[in-house]
Amino acid sequence: MKLFPGVHLVIGGARSGKSLHAEKLALTFPAPRVYLATSLALDRETAERIAAHRKRRGSEWTTVEEPYRLADALERAKRLGNVVLVDCVTMWLTNLLLSDSFDAQREVDFLCNLLAKEQEIPIIVVSNEVGLGIVPENELARSFRDLSGITNQKLADLASTVTWMVAGIPVVVKDGHPE
Amino acid sequence: MKLFPGVHLVIGGARSGKSLHAEKLALTFPAPRVYLATSLALDRETAERIAAHRKRRGSEWTTVEEPYRLADALERAKRLGNVVLVDCVTMWLTNLLLSDSFDAQREVDFLCNLLAKEQEIPIIVVSNEVGLGIVPENELARSFRDLSGITNQKLADLASTVTWMVAGIPVVVKDGHPE
Amino acid sequence: MKLFPGVHLVIGGARSGKSLHAEKLALTFPAPRVYLATSLALDRETAERIAAHRKRRGSEWTTVEEPYRLADALERAKRLGNVVLVDCVTMWLTNLLLSDSFDAQREVDFLCNLLAKEQEIPIIVVSNEVGLGIVPENELARSFRDLSGITNQKLADLASTVTWMVAGIPVVVKDGHPE
Repeated sequence: MKLFPGVHLVIGGARSGKSLHAEKLALTFPAPRVYLATSLALDRETAERIAAHRKRRGSEWTTVEEPYRLADALERAKRLGNVVLVDCVTMWLTNLLLSDSFDAQREVDFLCNLLAKEQEIPIIVVSNEVGLGIVPENELARSFRDLSGITNQKLADLASTVTWMVAGIPVVVKDGHPE
Repeated sequence: MKLFPGVHLVIGGARSGKSLHAEKLALTFPAPRVYLATSLALDRETAERIAAHRKRRGSEWTTVEEPYRLADALERAKRLGNVVLVDCVTMWLTNLLLSDSFDAQREVDFLCNLLAKEQEIPIIVVSNEVGLGIVPENELARSFRDLSGITNQKLADLASTVTWMVAGIPVVVKDGHPE
Repeated sequence: MKLFPGVHLVIGGARSGKSLHAEKLALTFPAPRVYLATSLALDRETAERIAAHRKRRGSEWTTVEEPYRLADALERAKRLGNVVLVDCVTMWLTNLLLSDSFDAQREVDFLCNLLAKEQEIPIIVVSNEVGLGIVPENELARSFRDLSGITNQKLADLASTVTWMVAGIPVVVKDGHPE
């Protein structure tokens, strides 16, 4: 798939190769490239994952880190490069739900309003699908699942392209490439 | 996708836009339309979801509610309109498994036997895919997952079309549209 | 899909019809056919599932059972028939993680190195996608989910064809059929 200005959603399960595919997409576009990271390194597992991702990307990326105010950070990131990769929405939603200082739904609206506008550069957004298992017994997990699913629908609706990852294989399910 | 007489399965995860897509499909067909609801409003979350769905549909639908005897209810519903939307199989299976008065497998057979016959009108069936997470530790959850998966396979086999929902985007994976 | 020499990955959720589809693929190829089973019948549920699968296959298959050393067993199996069905990777990874005697990552490398070579016969590999639910709270479940996802990506990368199962419907997402 050839990248073009607009929003490109890459969605799939855990360990489905979303980040790697999103990076490959970004690398088809000229530098400078901006990596917008949403993870908080709260535990060892996450810290190791962040470090592994950073090592893989190497020095060809400018990194912007923002766990909560993603819309603001995206505005900044867009001014720093020719392409932005947001990795990932799921971590950002997790951070918002676990924080007492933010209204997750309001932050999602900020992001979607920004992304729904015409874009001058490609913005690649990575998100997890988490709704294909058994209904979780935990109420917070159900809220998270609902918020994730509804946010993914909004992102897919405004995106120019949507790619569904199956074991590392990109399956394009929406292709709004301009003629 | 243009709707035609036969069974149309809409399958996907939680919050993947299944119900909304199924309603849009039904609205391409002339009224009267019948909504066959299987939910039991046992808790606040479910009651709110049912109310939200009902509000979205508005007054253009005739509603039939049946949490257990879905085959019988479908026979009735078919006589009331030009198109029937069954929403959803997953709630119905949950009701059956939690009840002591029904044999879930037998009820599934009743439904599938009815749906396997030639249909005079379109029947849209909504169901959840729940088998793409980790094996649940809870035995009832495993039984439910097995029953859901096997029922979904039977429904997909007899259906004229099967649509897989990805973040609100319909992906047609079986298209038996008559020539 | 017409089968040809090479690796054919069939992936999907629980009860999505993976094994049945894989068997149908194998039956398009001339006997003798080898079924390489990885399950350990540790509990009643699994024992019943194994028995049901065996009954369905009938006597037209040679069965090789190996819960741990899959690469070695595959070498043997390849010499016994015209087509091999490995069912399934997920059970094998479970066995490895629950055993103290094996390094799961090393066994995965053995298997992938073997499968990455040119094959004289079709090798059909069945695997579960388990990463599309909520993050499991249990650390072993998270490790298993990570290992499964990464292994599935490796298998999909080296495979000639990859088929994603949706409620029993095969969706070919990679098709490297030779011209």
